Amino acid sequence: IETLGLDLGFVNRYESKGKTFKSNAWNDHNRELDLGRNLGMMQQYKPFGSSAASKVQRNPLFSSLEPKDVSYFNEILGGEKYVVQDEERLETANTDWMHKYRGSSKLMLLPKTTEEVSQILKYCDSRSLAVVPQGGNTGLVGGSVPVFDEVIINVGLMNKVLSFDEVSGVLVCEAGCILENLATFLDTKGFVMPLDLGAKGSCHIGGNVSTNAGGLRLIRYGSLHGTVLGLEAVTANGNVLDMLGTLRKDNTGYDLKHLFIGSEGSLGIVTKVSILTQPKMSSVNLAFIACKDFLSCQKLLVEAKRNLGEILSAFEFLDNNSMDLVLNHLDGVRNPVSTSENFYILIETTGSGETYDREKLEGFLLKSLEQGLVSDGVIAQDINQASSFWRIREGITEALQKAGACYKYDLSLPVEEIYNIVNDLRGRLGDLANVMGYGHLGDGNLHLNISASEYNDKASPNTDLLGLIEPYVYEWTSKHRGSISAEHGLGVMKANEIFYSKSPETVALMVSIKKLLDPKGILNPYKVLPHSFFSP
Amino acid sequence: IETLGLDLGFVNRYESKGKTFKSNAWNDHNRELDLGRNLGMMQQYKPFGSSAASKVQRNPLFSSLEPKDVSYFNEILGGEKYVVQDEERLETANTDWMHKYRGSSKLMLLPKTTEEVSQILKYCDSRSLAVVPQGGNTGLVGGSVPVFDEVIINVGLMNKVLSFDEVSGVLVCEAGCILENLATFLDTKGFVMPLDLGAKGSCHIGGNVSTNAGGLRLIRYGSLHGTVLGLEAVTANGNVLDMLGTLRKDNTGYDLKHLFIGSEGSLGIVTKVSILTQPKMSSVNLAFIACKDFLSCQKLLVEAKRNLGEILSAFEFLDNNSMDLVLNHLDGVRNPVSTSENFYILIETTGSGETYDREKLEGFLLKSLEQGLVSDGVIAQDINQASSFWRIREGITEALQKAGACYKYDLSLPVEEIYNIVNDLRGRLGDLANVMGYGHLGDGNLHLNISASEYNDKASPNTDLLGLIEPYVYEWTSKHRGSISAEHGLGVMKANEIFYSKSPETVALMVSIKKLLDPKGILNPYKVLPHSFFSP
Repeated sequence: IETLGLDLGFVNRYESKGKTFKSNAWNDHNRELDLGRNLGMMQQYKPFGSSAASKVQRNPLFSSLEPKDVSYFNEILGGEKYVVQDEERLETANTDWMHKYRGSSKLMLLPKTTEEVSQILKYCDSRSLAVVPQGGNTGLVGGSVPVFDEVIINVGLMNKVLSFDEVSGVLVCEAGCILENLATFLDTKGFVMPLDLGAKGSCHIGGNVSTNAGGLRLIRYGSLHGTVLGLEAVTANGNVLDMLGTLRKDNTGYDLKHLFIGSEGSLGIVTKVSILTQPKMSSVNLAFIACKDFLSCQKLLVEAKRNLGEILSAFEFLDNNSMDLVLNHLDGVRNPVSTSENFYILIETTGSGETYDREKLEGFLLKSLEQGLVSDGVIAQDINQASSFWRIREGITEALQKAGACYKYDLSLPVEEIYNIVNDLRGRLGDLANVMGYGHLGDGNLHLNISASEYNDKASPNTDLLGLIEPYVYEWTSKHRGSISAEHGLGVMKANEIFYSKSPETVALMVSIKKLLDPKGILNPYKVLPHSFFSP
Repeated sequence: IETLGLDLGFVNRYESKGKTFKSNAWNDHNRELDLGRNLGMMQQYKPFGSSAASKVQRNPLFSSLEPKDVSYFNEILGGEKYVVQDEERLETANTDWMHKYRGSSKLMLLPKTTEEVSQILKYCDSRSLAVVPQGGNTGLVGGSVPVFDEVIINVGLMNKVLSFDEVSGVLVCEAGCILENLATFLDTKGFVMPLDLGAKGSCHIGGNVSTNAGGLRLIRYGSLHGTVLGLEAVTANGNVLDMLGTLRKDNTGYDLKHLFIGSEGSLGIVTKVSILTQPKMSSVNLAFIACKDFLSCQKLLVEAKRNLGEILSAFEFLDNNSMDLVLNHLDGVRNPVSTSENFYILIETTGSGETYDREKLEGFLLKSLEQGLVSDGVIAQDINQASSFWRIREGITEALQKAGACYKYDLSLPVEEIYNIVNDLRGRLGDLANVMGYGHLGDGNLHLNISASEYNDKASPNTDLLGLIEPYVYEWTSKHRGSISAEHGLGVMKANEIFYSKSPETVALMVSIKKLLDPKGILNPYKVLPHSFFSP
């Protein structure tokens, strides 16, 4: 959860305390996107400010859309309402929300049922028409927009809750349900989704599952591989795979649903989801803590897991550079602790014992102060104060944008290595840029950001910032068995970089499975896996 | 966790309170097995007391072992010590621990490294020699022993802990590590494995992963699909797949490790495992509760999840028939609550606040009494009392064995349906048998047991007990979208029954994936998937 919009969920979590408030950041961001559009900032297939993404050739084996295709879709979907050719609507559907990626699809289909998705795919497969599955289109790696003229299949009309079991907490719904709508529905039942992210007002549960979205509750409830109990998915040939179990335990054959969790729509279109939700807890507390070195942060994490254990719900960190940036660029933000330190930690607890949880957090903080792990710390006294603490962590992305150009990396690394890459990069870049590290320390997820006054990709060898960063960061990550994409996926942006995190044998098996499930490669082409495997 | 041996883990959990004690049930069980062997109770491919398992034909495409093969294995493994042909040792390795299944393998190989596993498989694949991967051989469905003359590959010598990270809690080890040894190792570090089961003294972590073992901590820490962070596996052609990540978040391509979790060694041999362990908690409490009807049990589960939430670690149930059986057949067992009721619940909490956790459980129990959900209840005052409570739940299997013949089913069902099948079956069987329901209510896992004085498979139509039970139980389970194997897997016992829980399209995809990864089908043949797909 690195970007502006996606960070909002942190704030929204406090709604459960009885007071609802909204940050404007998501809306601000949308305004900024409009601004970008007007200023012509869109660059096809070229991530804004980076030359790392290579151009892709359209696969010549794919057919081009013909009028007969549109007629057929009109027929099976029941009218033009569901067969979108309107230029303005296509413009939106062709463009990702960061305006980094833009396709040129001439058609967006809006199926209402699994059967319609099946009919669409069966036809597209027979006609060799490439497709891109689309949900809320909030992805960060260009995975949910066409690269060329792929037919867009948006499942937004498949948005029904199918069942909810208050005994087991199992929710079954269609893939097009917006995450926030599900959260609202569950709230009335006294439950919460096991994932939460700032884009929840737009993102679909089907997209969350297809991208294995991480989000804000992972440290507490684990990944979607654990919480998704079942799926229905349609493969490229129109085959409907009913894996929509609602059971916590089922050892009958291979658990195929995992193939569709995190494969970014390249193996099938998720049409229904069964997910284990959690009882809503009444008590949320937040501490803002200063630590003098990263080793103390690490030790604090170990102690927090041990002492706060069952109530720990977030463990986030930022370094002093990130804090300074926020203080310099955002209005009305102040450092909650009196002293300036090298690192800051946010610890959130969520539980069912209001007084106890608070005393436990206070006791933990006191003990950590005595042990010297923590140099200062404060616990939010009310929801406004909690919101101001989160504002610092969430505000980093916004501050980075205001500071100028920014090269962004979303890395998973062993916790003990997480800050070494920041230090190494500082040494490597010297005065050329400001290197910042922050992120989900509890999950081992670092958001590494390199801020400079302007993009400088093609400068002289001595000042070629991007050349100094890449492939250095990927190589460093690979050497430490890290992941070059902790939670964002590969999409079109990093499809060719997969070998930095996966072995050739593993990638070869992925390719075999892709070819098994989608022999013509029509499903979300040019994404996830290196294009070279699929070019004729 | 239905069987005698596997139930012991419950008791052993209390070791963390400072006192170690052991139940003799596992040893008793082993003695009973020896008895069974002496009495000639072994029946090849025919589950003891059941005619449900069909005979399997040996696949004629498989080669038979030749002296040149043994010479080759001697060469690559470094001597006869690792190439077992001793009849007594083969007898043990050919027989499952229940003595229900028995193969006729002439060779057991003991590789010491992944490279050796790779060389073995590469050779076997080229020679069309079928193999069966074996760990601790504690499986319940005949998955870990040969059906015919498959070469046994036992990974027991690959038993090293490779790394443990005290910050993240990630343990990396070889597949042959015995679960209990890992638990002991972690205990010194203040951590616990996310799974625990009574067979832990024998079972291997590689086998646990390959069978997606459920065990006692699932309600708290979730399934292995969530807690296993990475794997190394060797496929049939000897390819080593390095998926041994140690990261909580990694969205780079398809998450292939899930194919090997729960596929019972039919897609590859797991050689290394990376798993997220949990900090050890200091406070464990246990309540024994009586409920007058199943609806109250259901409501109590909902309330427990909500009110005990973060400290709830077990929610088990048994019905009055199960209680009576235990009281009648086991010595020294008494009902902890004064009144006889229709249902009994065990609620365990595990947390970090000794006084608080206890008061919380007491408060919950009091509230539930006031609300009428509970008719009586008691909290264990010490570890001996806790042990006596667990003895009732754990003793059911032992009592069933003493009571005579028993038909056993391990079902996952929606919680609200769990007891309906027990009632329906009682109506169906009348006086022919005693139907009992108990199990992991918190996970939706029912152990359905039908006890009769003797096995009566071929009696007259009116008293053909098995004919009245099967396929009725499977059909009932299927109709309610349940699973015919919640935690035991399919193995050879239920390979042909997979369609009761999985759709034909899904099974077809499983078969395609099996054929993709193991074209000759040499890996653990006749298991998991219906044999008909693989016969020539």
